[in-house]
Amino acid sequence: MTDISTFRKNASQIIDWIAKYYEHIEEYPVKSVVKPREIYNQLPGKPPEHGEDFRILLEDFENIIIPGITHWQHPHFFAYFPANSSFPSILAEMITASLGAQCMKWETSPAATELEEMMMNWLKQITGLPKSFHGVIQDTASTATLCAILTAREHMSGFKINTEGFSGQHYRVYCSEEAHSSVEKAVKIAGIGSKNLIKIKTDAEFALIPEELEKAILTDIHHNLTPLCVVAALGTTGSTAIDPLEQISEITSKYNMWLHIDAAYAGSALILPEYRWMIKGIENADSFVFNPHKWLFTNFDCSAYFVRSKENLVKTFQLIPEYLRTRSEGEVNDYSDWGIQLGRRFRALKLWFVLRSFGINGLQEKLRSHISLARHFADKIVKSGHFTLMAPVKFGLVCFRYTPEKPQGKDELNKLNERLLHEINDSGKIYLSHTKLNGEYTLRIQTNQTNVTLRNINEALNLVQDAASRVIRYSE
Amino acid sequence: MTDISTFRKNASQIIDWIAKYYEHIEEYPVKSVVKPREIYNQLPGKPPEHGEDFRILLEDFENIIIPGITHWQHPHFFAYFPANSSFPSILAEMITASLGAQCMKWETSPAATELEEMMMNWLKQITGLPKSFHGVIQDTASTATLCAILTAREHMSGFKINTEGFSGQHYRVYCSEEAHSSVEKAVKIAGIGSKNLIKIKTDAEFALIPEELEKAILTDIHHNLTPLCVVAALGTTGSTAIDPLEQISEITSKYNMWLHIDAAYAGSALILPEYRWMIKGIENADSFVFNPHKWLFTNFDCSAYFVRSKENLVKTFQLIPEYLRTRSEGEVNDYSDWGIQLGRRFRALKLWFVLRSFGINGLQEKLRSHISLARHFADKIVKSGHFTLMAPVKFGLVCFRYTPEKPQGKDELNKLNERLLHEINDSGKIYLSHTKLNGEYTLRIQTNQTNVTLRNINEALNLVQDAASRVIRYSE
Repeated sequence: MTDISTFRKNASQIIDWIAKYYEHIEEYPVKSVVKPREIYNQLPGKPPEHGEDFRILLEDFENIIIPGITHWQHPHFFAYFPANSSFPSILAEMITASLGAQCMKWETSPAATELEEMMMNWLKQITGLPKSFHGVIQDTASTATLCAILTAREHMSGFKINTEGFSGQHYRVYCSEEAHSSVEKAVKIAGIGSKNLIKIKTDAEFALIPEELEKAILTDIHHNLTPLCVVAALGTTGSTAIDPLEQISEITSKYNMWLHIDAAYAGSALILPEYRWMIKGIENADSFVFNPHKWLFTNFDCSAYFVRSKENLVKTFQLIPEYLRTRSEGEVNDYSDWGIQLGRRFRALKLWFVLRSFGINGLQEKLRSHISLARHFADKIVKSGHFTLMAPVKFGLVCFRYTPEKPQGKDELNKLNERLLHEINDSGKIYLSHTKLNGEYTLRIQTNQTNVTLRNINEALNLVQDAASRVIRYSE
Repeated sequence: MTDISTFRKNASQIIDWIAKYYEHIEEYPVKSVVKPREIYNQLPGKPPEHGEDFRILLEDFENIIIPGITHWQHPHFFAYFPANSSFPSILAEMITASLGAQCMKWETSPAATELEEMMMNWLKQITGLPKSFHGVIQDTASTATLCAILTAREHMSGFKINTEGFSGQHYRVYCSEEAHSSVEKAVKIAGIGSKNLIKIKTDAEFALIPEELEKAILTDIHHNLTPLCVVAALGTTGSTAIDPLEQISEITSKYNMWLHIDAAYAGSALILPEYRWMIKGIENADSFVFNPHKWLFTNFDCSAYFVRSKENLVKTFQLIPEYLRTRSEGEVNDYSDWGIQLGRRFRALKLWFVLRSFGINGLQEKLRSHISLARHFADKIVKSGHFTLMAPVKFGLVCFRYTPEKPQGKDELNKLNERLLHEINDSGKIYLSHTKLNGEYTLRIQTNQTNVTLRNINEALNLVQDAASRVIRYSE
């Protein structure tokens, strides 16, 4: 088990398994069809007394675990946003696991720290973020948004809440009705309270209305509440709506507020010059997050968090007990001072492998192909009749619903579409997810899976249409 | 790059690299000797336009990155606490990266969720934690402790701070002077304020003094402050001190407070019956964390967090927007509701591989051997003369310092020991870390690295003694 030749042999078997997995991935049901407890009940209730052979382990993995896996790397995974992997990223993760380096301080892994700094610079360059921003890898956008709100809280309170605790502050945070739930989670964790998160109305394309934002801010000021922070979304989760950053940034500047930008999914599109208009006004932003683990083919977790002032970030989180003091303090980046966790994996390595293996052009090509696949799906599904787009296609996501002549009632149409989603997903052939837009049950298909092709999209088109005709037959 | 046969070829090369790495790991300087910016300056300032060949990437990895790596899996890594990997764990990480599954909801990966539940049950069994506790994998103990304090905050406020925000609550949190910095970080993040973290005096063995705790609580009650939570440590970071859990739990029960236990490193020792006495009183605890990524040979990150009431945990964190609604809600564990992050890696797999590959006996053997290596080191270093133990050896950590006849002043001795640490570490041959105990600069050597042997420990003994004699010569 600890001997190297056995490791070689076992690792070759795993590589073989992985290669075959990707060769045959389309033969698996994309969404696992197991029932609750089906996997659990097959597992023995306690670990073995003595070590078991790797062969048995791998067999159990195939027989027990795999049937319960929903295949996120399957080209027919169209649900949520993707959590893309890619071969260069997998190779890097193999090394990361083997080095097992703890990247908390510069001194505990100088190369990891400095590669992280450079990778964040590379990302700034290819996305057009301001050169003066400082980047750090976080695990998720949830964590990054929490860091942003905590830093805003500290900055506004003169770094007093950290030490004194809340005492009479009445902070308000603003985002659109379509903002991600992680904003509310962060507001709760930070002790601000979810009732102080003001959800601003959105326009016909589900983007925040700046006039409504300013109105809300003025009302709050009138009531002696303190406007703290706006979280603007570039590419909302529901429908990839783009909040008007330039106008929002004028408002946050005017009222001296923190501006955090959540571009978790769509931030990757900034590598395409045709999307750069989205970040007009970014110089006035305080923090920005996007997830290479969504749409830049870098294994989860890899969330790229950028801040205008690294001093504010570090002042919010830094704590150096004696056992963590090093000689290079102050001279280098100690990234454990840039966020919540002390321990950190060597995540820059996979980003380095991906950016170099794909090259800028390779990444751009992939993203453009995904966007054109979404447009293709949208065109075809509308032309097929009885389907309606629920939001404009801005990136690699299509929001649509089935709208046959009957039924026409809102509730009935919602129920029909919910049934349609389950009909589609229970087939195991493709996996879509849903949302509600203006209270209307909406199907979401995202076309950003690393290896998705036109053939896969055309198959999805057929499957959706077939499922729709079955669902309407049942309901007649 | 995306083609499977190339992946096979590249992956074999990586496996070969990893195997050779472990074969020759002792030939690397354990602590990287690079200077700040040395790695950074070798990296090009921007990513390539076109994809590069894997061969070049691997060469650059060897030539640029490796010299900047501090080798955490090196048997001469004696610093901090370990972040142990093992071959079964590495094999599992290869699969995890390849599946790239997002384990946020049961529905997005049923097998990952159910394996996680079972692995947490296995850990409960082998550590003797109460059957009624519920487990979930967090990334780090920092995050778990934050979850504990947030849950305590919400529970005490009737789940009102989450919604209303802080309004006049004056909470106090207690831990020993030797508690980990993550407790203070959590108190700050939760908006309680670090001035409301009361650090209780410790006894001669650096364990919290329960009488002092109760005194502090009574004083706070007298001043109309609300005692919220005690964080007890089993195995402090500085010296692996063990807070007296039973007495502490009586106090927290008496004053109706939350009791969180941070056993990040030493919790693994609970798999040895001879350490079970440490958790007498555990039934009264509300939450408990230990890190299999420290001393159970499971790659970082894998922090096992257990709570008495999963309802309180879920009520603190759950938020279900429409796009995350699933049909199995309420019927299954959706682990993204059990913590801060929405996205989650498939971390149960490596735990499964490790527990089955080692077996309970295999793990016990390893831990006992590590503990006996620490005792061996302690014996020998004291017998060698001029070294003093600074704390009892309770697990796999020895706290010691060099105490030659001269100098004798406190400051001078501290400086001498600081110089000694650097003399030792700059050799690149072994890597130790330090702390201060009662203001005295103390060297820490932990003997828990996965593959450490008696030969390595004896080498460390010689190197420490040689370095000491050099340092004393310089200072004469």
